[in-house]
Amino acid sequence: MRANNQIQACHQCGGIDVHSHVVPENFPAYVGSRLPPEWPSMAVAESCHRHVMISGKVYRTVSDKCWDVTKRLEDLPGMGLGLQLISPMPELLSYWMGSADAQQMLRFLNEQIAAMVAESGGSLIGLGAVPLQDLDLAIRELEYAVRTLGLHGVEIGSNINGMPIGAPALDPFFAACEALDAAVFVHALRPAGMDRLVGPAALQQVLAYPGDVGLAAASAITGNLLLRRPNLRIAFSHGGGTLASLLPRLQEGWAVFPGLRECIAASPAEQARRFFYDTLVFDTPTLRHLVDMFGASQLMVGTDYPFNFHDRTPVERIAAAGFDADTAAALIHRNAQRYLGLERTAP
Amino acid sequence: MRANNQIQACHQCGGIDVHSHVVPENFPAYVGSRLPPEWPSMAVAESCHRHVMISGKVYRTVSDKCWDVTKRLEDLPGMGLGLQLISPMPELLSYWMGSADAQQMLRFLNEQIAAMVAESGGSLIGLGAVPLQDLDLAIRELEYAVRTLGLHGVEIGSNINGMPIGAPALDPFFAACEALDAAVFVHALRPAGMDRLVGPAALQQVLAYPGDVGLAAASAITGNLLLRRPNLRIAFSHGGGTLASLLPRLQEGWAVFPGLRECIAASPAEQARRFFYDTLVFDTPTLRHLVDMFGASQLMVGTDYPFNFHDRTPVERIAAAGFDADTAAALIHRNAQRYLGLERTAP
Repeated sequence: MRANNQIQACHQCGGIDVHSHVVPENFPAYVGSRLPPEWPSMAVAESCHRHVMISGKVYRTVSDKCWDVTKRLEDLPGMGLGLQLISPMPELLSYWMGSADAQQMLRFLNEQIAAMVAESGGSLIGLGAVPLQDLDLAIRELEYAVRTLGLHGVEIGSNINGMPIGAPALDPFFAACEALDAAVFVHALRPAGMDRLVGPAALQQVLAYPGDVGLAAASAITGNLLLRRPNLRIAFSHGGGTLASLLPRLQEGWAVFPGLRECIAASPAEQARRFFYDTLVFDTPTLRHLVDMFGASQLMVGTDYPFNFHDRTPVERIAAAGFDADTAAALIHRNAQRYLGLERTAP
Repeated sequence: MRANNQIQACHQCGGIDVHSHVVPENFPAYVGSRLPPEWPSMAVAESCHRHVMISGKVYRTVSDKCWDVTKRLEDLPGMGLGLQLISPMPELLSYWMGSADAQQMLRFLNEQIAAMVAESGGSLIGLGAVPLQDLDLAIRELEYAVRTLGLHGVEIGSNINGMPIGAPALDPFFAACEALDAAVFVHALRPAGMDRLVGPAALQQVLAYPGDVGLAAASAITGNLLLRRPNLRIAFSHGGGTLASLLPRLQEGWAVFPGLRECIAASPAEQARRFFYDTLVFDTPTLRHLVDMFGASQLMVGTDYPFNFHDRTPVERIAAAGFDADTAAALIHRNAQRYLGLERTAP
């Protein structure tokens, strides 16, 4: 069902954004006998905005660009983008609900995302979401999302109710992703370190999110994920979060501690260079550091569009960073083509 | 009591290491009626080593370089060092004991460190430790450590029983440090994120430590620590941990979220350039990134000597990183002189 030729044609007009989010215009009514307290709903807000209500509170106020394909497409050229990968707002991943309830929500989201992709005429492609608190159900939903809905992969949290994504228990899920050729995008979610913050709630996104992504990526290294699943295409949000700071120390620790050498089956630095990362770091020296750490072949534009805290000039920023033209092209679209499996259908 | 002239004479022979640790040869018997379960003791190990026993288990096996001044001084020239700042092994900070019990242990450590400094003939200087679970007692012990024992400052944990060091509650302590002209060295301790690790226990030090230091430094920014205490000299271990990865996102978040702009009274990037950091990152591109983020005037050699996971070529690594001679000299000794208040007594 994937219309890769059409996508190929379009994204040659500009960069590919692998990190942008969807919130549906409305959430479905819960079907069942025990409404989960975290089941989200929408409340009206000022013009073009809605409040996402979770557990009786405003979780976030979002604009209609979260669901309105026309408005979304209007914004792409201004950001230098020709193609955008859309995925659910992470707080909708529903790992904390009963798995059947979560699947009810995620099935709705997956279908919404597929509908937005279909409406976009090739300018949007989609990632779905699956109830990872139940691996069997998650794998079945993944198959539906990829085979029936034509989504290009799945967004997952940086932890699954606290379980690091490198935990061996998740292997059947990653095996299924590999078998289905589904790209995996790991996004920060309900992060560790919240009790270390001094200041307003926004610090969760600002400081704790990248920490949790960094630990998630590190767990995928110490858990040998890509040695177990060598064909898995997996990317980490927010430039891999803190991984770039952690990696040299992990590499040195691997050389020093026999226990680490025993458990980690290949060089952490080399394993890290097989993951993909977005470029969402808001800073040129830090972007260059990511290239040093992870390689110019592994970085892809990410924006966090259309949330307020998003990168408004992602392609311009890369173009201005002083990379040679080939490196810039790799970051702006070529690596994302590889990550998303788009290049295999190119003419 | 500080013999700064003698120190000045000596450290011109080489670099200044601000991050090295002491474990005493023996721990004192507990004086009191209720032995705290975490009161450490020593058990014999293979030649030149001892086991630090905490709560009935081997916490770490350490070499006699932890307490033997002669052996320690023999190792300095090989690392390119002329002066070393010694501080307690962080797990000895005892914040989790009753405060009087903790003070009993920390007084012993402070006196041990002062004795090692005295024995070193100017090649070692010391940081003490104080029971920060009780601010009044901590301030009194700080006064004793600085005024009576002549220590140059104090090592503190990256959190105090979970409380971030940027929390306003700690302000009286930092006010006392400022008034006493005592340098503060923030070291990773009992870190957040432990449940995100996949692999052996060493990952606590390798991955969770830098995460906790990064959040500690971030809390000092969001808590406006150096705006409240402008003359405080404070340094963060392990190159500031993950702060270098977090800082651009914090800077951007500060520009975007009105709540952050309201609470954080000066640019995070500028605040970060007023802290000191050690260079303990084991990697040249990452060291250069620290210079980009924090400024060449804020970095100082740190080794974690004499623990097994320490940097054996700290000065060589800086010398080989391609900095100009003035920058290299700043990193190797000049910044540490400023951090430790040594330059004010230079001839």
